[in-house]
Amino acid sequence: MTDPKTTPDLWVFENQTPHLRLGWRVTEILRHEMTPFQELLVVDTAESGRALFLDGCVMLTEKDEYFYHEMIAHVPLFAHPLPERVLIVGGGDGGTLREVLKHREVKECVLCDIDQRVTEASRAFFPTLSVGFDNPRATLLHEDALVYIKEQRGAFDVILVDSTDPVGPAVGLFEKPFYASLAASLKPGGIISAQAESPIARGQDVRKVMNGLSATFPKAQLYLGLAPSYPGALWAFGTGRLSGDLSPKRPLAFDTRYYTTEIHRLALELPPFVKELIR
Amino acid sequence: MTDPKTTPDLWVFENQTPHLRLGWRVTEILRHEMTPFQELLVVDTAESGRALFLDGCVMLTEKDEYFYHEMIAHVPLFAHPLPERVLIVGGGDGGTLREVLKHREVKECVLCDIDQRVTEASRAFFPTLSVGFDNPRATLLHEDALVYIKEQRGAFDVILVDSTDPVGPAVGLFEKPFYASLAASLKPGGIISAQAESPIARGQDVRKVMNGLSATFPKAQLYLGLAPSYPGALWAFGTGRLSGDLSPKRPLAFDTRYYTTEIHRLALELPPFVKELIR
Repeated sequence: MTDPKTTPDLWVFENQTPHLRLGWRVTEILRHEMTPFQELLVVDTAESGRALFLDGCVMLTEKDEYFYHEMIAHVPLFAHPLPERVLIVGGGDGGTLREVLKHREVKECVLCDIDQRVTEASRAFFPTLSVGFDNPRATLLHEDALVYIKEQRGAFDVILVDSTDPVGPAVGLFEKPFYASLAASLKPGGIISAQAESPIARGQDVRKVMNGLSATFPKAQLYLGLAPSYPGALWAFGTGRLSGDLSPKRPLAFDTRYYTTEIHRLALELPPFVKELIR
Repeated sequence: MTDPKTTPDLWVFENQTPHLRLGWRVTEILRHEMTPFQELLVVDTAESGRALFLDGCVMLTEKDEYFYHEMIAHVPLFAHPLPERVLIVGGGDGGTLREVLKHREVKECVLCDIDQRVTEASRAFFPTLSVGFDNPRATLLHEDALVYIKEQRGAFDVILVDSTDPVGPAVGLFEKPFYASLAASLKPGGIISAQAESPIARGQDVRKVMNGLSATFPKAQLYLGLAPSYPGALWAFGTGRLSGDLSPKRPLAFDTRYYTTEIHRLALELPPFVKELIR
């Protein structure tokens, strides 16, 4: 047992549910702190590169974060004919911002994450995620999005809710009053998209998001992506819009690892068990 | 701690890799034996219903087995205009057989699994999987498929290789001589499909399967499905055929939970990282 990758036998587990846990072998603890809002942990893992945990839930691993970040960003952005002003709620790690800035149409992307320590950890440990923080088209705010959004009437073409799970600081981001504020913050033709948990592991959360969006927006629609390190792996995104549809409006003009125009189209095709879940 | 679901604190973990493990809380051990071929474990879990493990690898959980079984069966079967004779190699749990028998075109489905104890465990503990064992269109064989296949020249329209991982008794099912035997066992227009591991967790296995199929068949093609309880969750299936294509040829005429004709089309669209993996 002299392999530095296996000594000591250190593991971090996420309790995906009380009865299911996914564990990574840890090679180094890089940061562990209580921020003003949550418990933050950054580790090096032997399997998945660096990983960020908030309140015990895995937010990302370097190995597979691109599935989630490409799908939360590119489906709504390509569904919009001209997304010039974009807001990210949460997403302090920067992964969603990185994908949004690939769209040349985007003139400004505001990232509003309540917890500055997340952004700082990303700058310190995740250079491939924080790459957009100093982009002149990016604006970083560390405010409560529930408050910020109220002053943004008609300001955005696309809003992406890249929140943590509906426990802790993100609870309000899954409630109807927030969705109403989002709707008021859209320009005509605007689209909002919110991470909506897994239809396999947390079907009740998917249903709650869709109920909230359906009660708020003339058009609410779910689409599916992947998040291999998240509970259930199949991941849902709930969208709301005033008009239009979610089909891709512009060709893919930059490199991706998972997203393609065809995958976009097919992400909108829900399998029977998901249709039943949100019926 | 008097909840019978949490006392004692019993868990079963699959080491998905040496550095990543997925664990289920176990409420009851139903069977644990060494068969002549492998270690077999059947447990009740608090999260995913009953689960079958072979040599420490999870084969299925009741909660999500349908993703894998629908996708290994329906993509090749719907890609074939008239699949009358079907062979399943492995698949002793019966899940793939159950899906194959949903196709009214199928006149006979031979299931050839070397380990009779798997079939017996499925009969005893997995009634929703073993449902097809006594169907008059099903033939169960407990033989070595490597031997059986050599006497089956031109016998099958579709062959499904529903094997365990490429360790233990299934090693030969990932080798080129076996693929050559499969090719010789196809009728004109025939299709073979083999579970090919995960492009996320086991990319080298995906590549090996595709190399073997490409060296054997005029047309080799990968498609993707989901297996939420398997390492990586995104799951690959390698196909080989002498002619034709994999597009769906017949409408879906029975109930499914994941497979649809649109998801069939989606499964054939490989994301950039998978194209790169098998290039």
